[in-house]
Amino acid sequence: MQSKPVADHVDVLVVGAGPAGLMMATWLAKCGIKTRVVDKRGTKVFNGQADGLQCRTLEIFDSFGFGHRAWIESNHMLEICLWNPDQDGVIQRSSRIADTIPGISRFQQVVLHQGRIERFFLDAIKDFSHGDVSVERGIMPTSLEIDTATVEDPDAYPVTVQLRHLGEEEATPKQTATMSNGSAVQDGLFRSNLAADDTADLLKAAELNAKADTLEVVKAKYVVGADGAHSWVRKAIGLKLEGDSTDYIWGVLDIVPITDFPDIRMRCAIHSASFGSIMVIPRENKLVRLYIQLTTTEKTGDQDSRADRSSITPEVILESAQRIIAPYKLSYRTLDWWTAYQIGQRVGSNFGVHDRVFLAGDAVHTHSPKAGQGMNVSMQDSYNLGWKLANVIKGISDRSILKTYESERKAIAHALINFDHKFSRLFSGRPARDIMDEEGISMEEFKNAFQKGNLFASGIAVDYDKSAIVSKPDATTDGEEASAKAQSLATELNIGQRIPSVKVLNQSDARPWHLQELLRSNGTWRVILFPGDINKPTQKKRLDSLCEAMADPSSFLNRFRPAGSRYDSVIEVLTVHAAKRADVDIFDFAEVLRPYDEVDGWDYNKIFVDDESYHEGHGQLYQNFGIDREEGCAVVLRPDQYISFVGKIDDYKSIDDFFSGFMLAQNTVEELK
Amino acid sequence: MQSKPVADHVDVLVVGAGPAGLMMATWLAKCGIKTRVVDKRGTKVFNGQADGLQCRTLEIFDSFGFGHRAWIESNHMLEICLWNPDQDGVIQRSSRIADTIPGISRFQQVVLHQGRIERFFLDAIKDFSHGDVSVERGIMPTSLEIDTATVEDPDAYPVTVQLRHLGEEEATPKQTATMSNGSAVQDGLFRSNLAADDTADLLKAAELNAKADTLEVVKAKYVVGADGAHSWVRKAIGLKLEGDSTDYIWGVLDIVPITDFPDIRMRCAIHSASFGSIMVIPRENKLVRLYIQLTTTEKTGDQDSRADRSSITPEVILESAQRIIAPYKLSYRTLDWWTAYQIGQRVGSNFGVHDRVFLAGDAVHTHSPKAGQGMNVSMQDSYNLGWKLANVIKGISDRSILKTYESERKAIAHALINFDHKFSRLFSGRPARDIMDEEGISMEEFKNAFQKGNLFASGIAVDYDKSAIVSKPDATTDGEEASAKAQSLATELNIGQRIPSVKVLNQSDARPWHLQELLRSNGTWRVILFPGDINKPTQKKRLDSLCEAMADPSSFLNRFRPAGSRYDSVIEVLTVHAAKRADVDIFDFAEVLRPYDEVDGWDYNKIFVDDESYHEGHGQLYQNFGIDREEGCAVVLRPDQYISFVGKIDDYKSIDDFFSGFMLAQNTVEELK
Repeated sequence: MQSKPVADHVDVLVVGAGPAGLMMATWLAKCGIKTRVVDKRGTKVFNGQADGLQCRTLEIFDSFGFGHRAWIESNHMLEICLWNPDQDGVIQRSSRIADTIPGISRFQQVVLHQGRIERFFLDAIKDFSHGDVSVERGIMPTSLEIDTATVEDPDAYPVTVQLRHLGEEEATPKQTATMSNGSAVQDGLFRSNLAADDTADLLKAAELNAKADTLEVVKAKYVVGADGAHSWVRKAIGLKLEGDSTDYIWGVLDIVPITDFPDIRMRCAIHSASFGSIMVIPRENKLVRLYIQLTTTEKTGDQDSRADRSSITPEVILESAQRIIAPYKLSYRTLDWWTAYQIGQRVGSNFGVHDRVFLAGDAVHTHSPKAGQGMNVSMQDSYNLGWKLANVIKGISDRSILKTYESERKAIAHALINFDHKFSRLFSGRPARDIMDEEGISMEEFKNAFQKGNLFASGIAVDYDKSAIVSKPDATTDGEEASAKAQSLATELNIGQRIPSVKVLNQSDARPWHLQELLRSNGTWRVILFPGDINKPTQKKRLDSLCEAMADPSSFLNRFRPAGSRYDSVIEVLTVHAAKRADVDIFDFAEVLRPYDEVDGWDYNKIFVDDESYHEGHGQLYQNFGIDREEGCAVVLRPDQYISFVGKIDDYKSIDDFFSGFMLAQNTVEELK
Repeated sequence: MQSKPVADHVDVLVVGAGPAGLMMATWLAKCGIKTRVVDKRGTKVFNGQADGLQCRTLEIFDSFGFGHRAWIESNHMLEICLWNPDQDGVIQRSSRIADTIPGISRFQQVVLHQGRIERFFLDAIKDFSHGDVSVERGIMPTSLEIDTATVEDPDAYPVTVQLRHLGEEEATPKQTATMSNGSAVQDGLFRSNLAADDTADLLKAAELNAKADTLEVVKAKYVVGADGAHSWVRKAIGLKLEGDSTDYIWGVLDIVPITDFPDIRMRCAIHSASFGSIMVIPRENKLVRLYIQLTTTEKTGDQDSRADRSSITPEVILESAQRIIAPYKLSYRTLDWWTAYQIGQRVGSNFGVHDRVFLAGDAVHTHSPKAGQGMNVSMQDSYNLGWKLANVIKGISDRSILKTYESERKAIAHALINFDHKFSRLFSGRPARDIMDEEGISMEEFKNAFQKGNLFASGIAVDYDKSAIVSKPDATTDGEEASAKAQSLATELNIGQRIPSVKVLNQSDARPWHLQELLRSNGTWRVILFPGDINKPTQKKRLDSLCEAMADPSSFLNRFRPAGSRYDSVIEVLTVHAAKRADVDIFDFAEVLRPYDEVDGWDYNKIFVDDESYHEGHGQLYQNFGIDREEGCAVVLRPDQYISFVGKIDDYKSIDDFFSGFMLAQNTVEELK
């Protein structure tokens, strides 16, 4: 023990600086929450690792302002080609499928290595926090205690964590030092599930390094364990992953391929007749990732045992690939990264304890990487939790909203596990030779699963259950799904799902924006008013009556807003009307919809219109959202763009009731008058 | 004299680091040319200054990789509103016009202050040159000599320039120290044409500063004077601007307006009945730029005299604005920048001497800023010259192509001056009260000029004359214009104009790209083959015959390429075919169209297709370019994307002849065999 622990007080301690931890830190930095982020590794990831980015993930990135960076640098995947053995057992292209279902998002699935994604997060964290938040590397927690007596006290710091600073050598992962063409190539085996947990080794090494081994104590209001599949935090709070692993072992090569296979720049699923399967993922910088089934490697025993990884080398993996892709030739001169893993699916029974310590990402669900889902679902875990923590820490929301993290994300984790289980089995199996071949996999069934999986894989289908923050009808009795599409005011909007996006025009300058571009992730709730054609006196009157109620000092806009804060700091009101743009101007709308500031004048960025643009077409929002131009509606969006509530345009009371269900009044009505 | 001059040898010395100088440096850095850039100012511009970016300028920025930065940060202008006095003399909105003509470009005109634009250039220069090229500030040339005996020797350094390093104090422009709300506001009077040339003062001050005043000597192959309206280089080579100034004096305010004028976020031209005119330019960060006619300021004398600027303050300018915009109210709390200028138009008789020292930007043409043209035309001057210099310095092109700089850009400068002269007169004049009011300006004429000016102002209409690098028919005898549209192989392409852009798909991965996105500014010429439907045997055969000729060791592809350089380093071949994408793959095309590299395999980024995309529609290139799918054509593009040549798809000889007209063979045919 080299130094005496000194207690540091933070709102949130994030353990782990992979995508899930960095997403959490980005949210908290954006919301101005006092945060520390620690990671046991000495550096960020530079290559290899997870790489697919779903449409929904890109929408989220864009809401933080760096979607375009991922979009520009990444490789875009447009088409999936399925290759199966023909009657002679020779692989042939059997189908082409759109990689992303057209129309579901303004983004499509792309591929970019994790190191660049972490860079975007790190830049955003620095920018949002003005340098106050940064990732502290080479630091591990060694003990975690929760003072259960104070867990319900919003002002308490009930979690005490001891941190140990590692030396540089200990924080650098060991490479298996494979040599290819005479030089060492980075591999990912140290993070593979074929590798043993190295946490204990790291700690032991640190103890021996007298210089680096210092301790400190952090008292935190909340702790987020985003520390991966071997999560230390998970063990510290006594939670376990449940599930199983399979027989299937796969290798991964990131190479610049030299091949006459014509679809090497497409995403391909190749089933050979009897040598296993390959998934082709074309990447940036001429790289292609190949997921290659290693049929020669067998399962070695029970669930917790691991396949012998010493026999797995890039050469072994390549040889498998060459057998599968024959008669086409495949070789490479450039190998960027490689790894191997055993397929398995596990999920945590709980996502945290006391709503004070939470798990996110691989710490609470693991599965195979081929579906390109892991990093996305992990980041979306934190994206779900971050704004809730920020709102609670700021005293704007009741702690009860934190319960929705587990209820919302556990369902997603199970859906992911089920999807991966089915998909892996279909992909790892041998294609049926004919209809009588019952042990073989039907290629028709595989294609159907692929197509069906595409919507799931986009991240767009996520549909959160009813709760204090999702005001939807109870699950329908017909059982299948709890869709709330039934509400007739906006027939194409689904409460519980993220709001879709079409182009709308700014009333003041005619500029087209995607609706989602207006919904920046900054922690605020939004009321979007769709008043219809406000040149109709009835609609104008209904909108004006709502505005009158909202302008009242005791309205939800004022009651839940801390004194002295900006008018849109807790709940922002946006309007998208359906009159012709040229027939109205912003002064035709009540001032509460275009608030006045004595330095900046009126706010020109709150009122929009569903009309034709000069250069980018007509979004046809009312038609696409199923909103009647002579009826309109009001929609409440969560800070993560999920739809909480749909009601009548003049139903002030229901909106007020909704917010009153979990928001904390900042002033008494008397103070506000 | 503090230090002994030591001669430094550079390929190009750029004097002036405004937009024209930085564009030049960006080209040269991208092409790997040894360059120095000096500027007498101590810092880059931080606010104010020129701000409009044309479509064509954004296309150019995008070709260097930073178009999206300008697009994201800028304010987009969508609509122009014209306001005129009604019968009672009260201003009313009379028309709305699209700010950018729909369909002419994938970008629209935007506004961003010069400081950010200079930042994009500086970042690109650093990136492209790996830090070798940077702007050296606080440095002025003091003498320039040309050794006329060696100007035609491509290896000579005929220009000798003496540079003087200024002290920090001398390099900082004097502000007029206007106080507003108690704090100093930056103004631009020091660069205004109302200000005297401060070059002599700067030099004198530097002489007095013994510590900073050091000299050095640079020997340059070429010098580019991009040193503004008071250009020292222009004087040093004995050239003058010709033209005149007018009576009209205008003030400029960059403010966050507080106003009930409903179109303050639109670009507006407001003619008041008798108090003058305002141009409203909405900007980024809530700012609005107002160009305000100062009717109280009168011309003081002959061409070279200047209006008395001591009487011009932000308060005086605001009062003028308030009179013009009444009955609407206008005030501000935030003033970001202001200046004033006298309208005038001047252009240089020549754009350089000996094709060794060139002038670009304000150094060779000046005019009023309201049309938002100045910075664009200036940058486009250097964009025209940069690749020519790079190609000549690299020994790829004959020096004769440098003559086209003046022949191409002088015509543009004159067109700009004429446009500005007419536009300024119409904008500064008093609106006619009625049809009998002959001294007044017809508002109908003004609107027509505005609309007509829009195409000019986009930068898209630029049409370069016939030359060694523009293989177009002689000017038509009907006189009006020398359009080459008549060529029937691509009826909608105009030789001499930049190639338009529609979406095409990469054959290998189905990704949609705008054609222009494939035409990065890197100094290479391009042959774009449009072979039509290559599933038709006739078309396939014609394409194959061309490919056979191109693959020959003595072809233009090999003859003009230095030994050991990459296959696309001097001339890149791109193909856009019109068969269905799914019916062919890249191995159906000759290898010369998808060259092989032993490390990277085949090149997947050379063959494209005009077909439907999954998410971004169908570019309909053949239809939009007027190319017959059963005839096709070959197009040669300059490194700046202007069309040089259109010929038959199998007319190898004409393409070879075209390149032979100015390119220098790098190898003898015997060496190549």
